[in-house]
Amino acid sequence: MSEALSAGIDIGGTKAEVALVRGREVVAHQRFPTGGKTAEEIVGEAAATLRALLPAGAAPRAVGVGVAGRVEPGSGLVFQAPNLGWKSYPLGERLTAALRLPVSVLNDVQAATYAEGVYGAGRGASSVVALFIGTGIGSGILEGGSLLRGCSGSAGEWGHSVVDYRGALCTCGNRGCLETLAAGWGIARLAREAVTADPVAGEALLARVGGEVEHITTRAVGEAATAGDPLALGVFETAAEALGAGLASIVNALDPCRIVLGGGVMEGYPTLLKTADERMRARLAASVAVIPPLMPAELGRFSGVIGAAEWASANTP
Amino acid sequence: MSEALSAGIDIGGTKAEVALVRGREVVAHQRFPTGGKTAEEIVGEAAATLRALLPAGAAPRAVGVGVAGRVEPGSGLVFQAPNLGWKSYPLGERLTAALRLPVSVLNDVQAATYAEGVYGAGRGASSVVALFIGTGIGSGILEGGSLLRGCSGSAGEWGHSVVDYRGALCTCGNRGCLETLAAGWGIARLAREAVTADPVAGEALLARVGGEVEHITTRAVGEAATAGDPLALGVFETAAEALGAGLASIVNALDPCRIVLGGGVMEGYPTLLKTADERMRARLAASVAVIPPLMPAELGRFSGVIGAAEWASANTP
Repeated sequence: MSEALSAGIDIGGTKAEVALVRGREVVAHQRFPTGGKTAEEIVGEAAATLRALLPAGAAPRAVGVGVAGRVEPGSGLVFQAPNLGWKSYPLGERLTAALRLPVSVLNDVQAATYAEGVYGAGRGASSVVALFIGTGIGSGILEGGSLLRGCSGSAGEWGHSVVDYRGALCTCGNRGCLETLAAGWGIARLAREAVTADPVAGEALLARVGGEVEHITTRAVGEAATAGDPLALGVFETAAEALGAGLASIVNALDPCRIVLGGGVMEGYPTLLKTADERMRARLAASVAVIPPLMPAELGRFSGVIGAAEWASANTP
Repeated sequence: MSEALSAGIDIGGTKAEVALVRGREVVAHQRFPTGGKTAEEIVGEAAATLRALLPAGAAPRAVGVGVAGRVEPGSGLVFQAPNLGWKSYPLGERLTAALRLPVSVLNDVQAATYAEGVYGAGRGASSVVALFIGTGIGSGILEGGSLLRGCSGSAGEWGHSVVDYRGALCTCGNRGCLETLAAGWGIARLAREAVTADPVAGEALLARVGGEVEHITTRAVGEAATAGDPLALGVFETAAEALGAGLASIVNALDPCRIVLGGGVMEGYPTLLKTADERMRARLAASVAVIPPLMPAELGRFSGVIGAAEWASANTP
């Protein structure tokens, strides 16, 4: 754990968080909206926000940036960040120039994985996979304290591993990705399909959203399931079965010591973690001697800035 | 590449190969059968074979052993080697004692992956996944020149990633693993099911195996497909679709620079590689900027001894 102060910046499609970090502790932080701003405006605002947070005369040991996109290892070039509308944007270079400090850039979910692996639910384990289930599914892989980044910085997209090879179309153009069945949008999709197929069984869920199938959200499905609605429970049954299959694939492919699960869907409907754990264990019972525990993520919304800051610090000589 | 002579031992359920290796070159080698022998007998014979291969007075720089089982990183303890009937056998310790030389032990497919990644079809790439499709599917992961071994030494079992979560039972107890659709046994299974479901369409294939459904082998399906038999072609269509899905999952999860494909099924029916490549590319076209090339494995049956020897050499101070 680093004793010096580092800076972490977490840039997403709607907001950016800027923080001063010491180990897992957030010493100071400030957020600003990013929607509708150009890349140059976001870089300028991030640099100004960080300067305002820093005590007079102080310089951070390192500056790390997590961004919602594909980042080239080394250069900090953002190949693609769809939610920000960026393509081939030299974020590392521009922020280094704006701050006059070296900046390290990585994917935001990789940053969150680093934080959970080193300071959160994965601490002490030599290999960790983290899965964050929100609207989509993001994930990251930590092995021996190092983030696995892959050839073009995109490693860890377990949400787009295929669990149903003849299944539904995914937002990525592939078919049967884990996201189609277990991400927030996949769960809402399953519920809409089930309600359309059987409007009588769907009445209770429909009533929660004003009678419009298109208004069914993951949150509404979660609340209906918690209230015991059979259709909503069936949707989560399917999601848990698919997630259990995806988790079993992770165990067989990577043999992690621990799997960390976080994100809005997990927090909104915690039963999913328990059921997915059962399904995963049933799938692995006959072949795997030691099945890794599933651990709820611990660091919440600050995992991105903590991870970016501490990863940059660990990778700065 | 090491200039010194290293020793590689590859222990499988039917035979063991012992070799002296320099880089990717096999300088001398000898094999012996392992079937029906105890672990102690195999260790004794491997040590005697290696001593006989070594020039008088020479000692190898390192001794590496690849074994068809799950191997604890560090200790060289073999948790499980089903084809050898071993459970918790201290292979590293026993062979070190028999040879009076330090011995490094790893899984045999991990060893073959190391060889292909460093000296074979993956050389020069910073991250490589290798997939060997024979009766089963073995695989390994190489990142920045290091083998990913996982928490209990079992990383790389992509054959047991789930591509069809409600699919057929696998030999491992799980459901819908890639092996059920694309391993040799899975392809034979699909063909037997297709012939049973439609005996008229299956006549040509059945005639090749003496009329007995149970005698349908992967080789027979491959020969029938090469001869243009529609049922056999349909089976390989399904296998290629599932393999394309599995490869797309590998790309999304690990972002390798290159994927190496080897093994008997690939060699017996090379069209599978081409079709699986098309299917993988179709699944990734919209989301992945650079799709890694699929490369045929180059080192053949010696990849195990080369990989074990050179991995041990690279990990010996």
